[in-house]
Amino acid sequence: MYTGALTIVAYFFLFIISTLHDTQQIMFSVPKLNVFERIILASGSPRRKEILENKGGLSNLIISPSTYEEENKGLVDKLDVYKYITDIAVGKVKQVALLDKSKMDGVVHTKTLYIGADTIVFHKGKILEKPTDKKDALSMLKEFRKDVDHQVCSAVVLLVFNEKNSTSQDQFEIHSFHETTDVKFTSGLSDEILEHYVDTGEPMDKAGGYGIQGLGAQLIESIHGDYYNVMGFPLYRFCQELNMFIETLQCKSLFL
Amino acid sequence: MYTGALTIVAYFFLFIISTLHDTQQIMFSVPKLNVFERIILASGSPRRKEILENKGGLSNLIISPSTYEEENKGLVDKLDVYKYITDIAVGKVKQVALLDKSKMDGVVHTKTLYIGADTIVFHKGKILEKPTDKKDALSMLKEFRKDVDHQVCSAVVLLVFNEKNSTSQDQFEIHSFHETTDVKFTSGLSDEILEHYVDTGEPMDKAGGYGIQGLGAQLIESIHGDYYNVMGFPLYRFCQELNMFIETLQCKSLFL
Repeated sequence: MYTGALTIVAYFFLFIISTLHDTQQIMFSVPKLNVFERIILASGSPRRKEILENKGGLSNLIISPSTYEEENKGLVDKLDVYKYITDIAVGKVKQVALLDKSKMDGVVHTKTLYIGADTIVFHKGKILEKPTDKKDALSMLKEFRKDVDHQVCSAVVLLVFNEKNSTSQDQFEIHSFHETTDVKFTSGLSDEILEHYVDTGEPMDKAGGYGIQGLGAQLIESIHGDYYNVMGFPLYRFCQELNMFIETLQCKSLFL
Repeated sequence: MYTGALTIVAYFFLFIISTLHDTQQIMFSVPKLNVFERIILASGSPRRKEILENKGGLSNLIISPSTYEEENKGLVDKLDVYKYITDIAVGKVKQVALLDKSKMDGVVHTKTLYIGADTIVFHKGKILEKPTDKKDALSMLKEFRKDVDHQVCSAVVLLVFNEKNSTSQDQFEIHSFHETTDVKFTSGLSDEILEHYVDTGEPMDKAGGYGIQGLGAQLIESIHGDYYNVMGFPLYRFCQELNMFIETLQCKSLFL
């Protein structure tokens, strides 16, 4: 009787899984996406995966996290921020593309799109990444509750191998962009509330020490820009820039 | 062998469910929330449930959808919009509270918080609710891609029974507020892209004909305000207003 009930639950579970698979849609705002046979995301972030799969409708996304080392530059000029995050995203995606090539004995798969991304929080001239510990997370959150906005900045890099060139210098076709969203925390948050939030454990794996898509939503009064950029991947701009990238590749007689 | 494998899947399924339950957190930004023994949401919207449970951290939320009838007023003055949606939210929550009372043979449960909400899209002096059909959805989306913002407006109503009064006129303590978020669609969207989106079926059960939390995310360039308000429930304001409501109730010597 007990096993029978569990079997029914299992069938229900499998049914739900199969339904989810069936309803996956191709990314409708990028009509020529089918020029790519494989799409590889060079990031282990579950949030980027969720945005591309559930909001972007991208089925069959391949996840290949990069081990590229980042180095926090601390205080920087605002313009340097974009170069900093773009360099990291380029580093990540190149590493993953070359690893993919080496797995295929040096033969490139030309119809593969590789995607790299990096996201940081920028506040008062300082780059904030993942907190080192609970104290660090609390310190970031206390800064954010003051009455100025902070910025969430992402860089995204699109990369394909260029089959017409084979030297290490020009073997890639690369297109990059960056996106910024202003975030305003509420100013009336008590130390007790912030400590309670840090105790949930949510801040620890997130740039800036909060997750807008989780319990951190309770702390945020408003944003100006793309919500998904704050979550870690600027979906709207990605669709637009990907359309442009495909046009460029086709103009260069790649993917024809 | 087959049944054995399914049983393992079933156990895994049950484990995931139990884990989800264990990690539910009480709403940390409302420290005195435990004055309520029951919290009832007078809405059948899966999005409001998700926001309150997964972002608000509200465990044990009771869902009791209202059957209160809405009537689209068509073209209205901007100020009327707030009255219109607040009236609907009040109508919904009162109906559910009275039904709850009747189920308990007319004895009120004074430590129950009832929550009502209504969300509409406001564009060029017109209230837009759920589309009637695919053609209606497409027509709304074509309007939004022009270069002006549209507004998403929600009203939320908090209600408790006042044990000190029993006449039908003053048996409720009510607190309401409304929140508006500006949404900007991209201007370069082709008819083909919008038709493809409508064909996914996503627009049909959503005010304004799109879901920012779904595939509709690809259409939206930026928002100004609270993302969760566009999704159907302004979480940040809700936490703030609920703190104020609890203070008021305690000043009136209710819930002491």
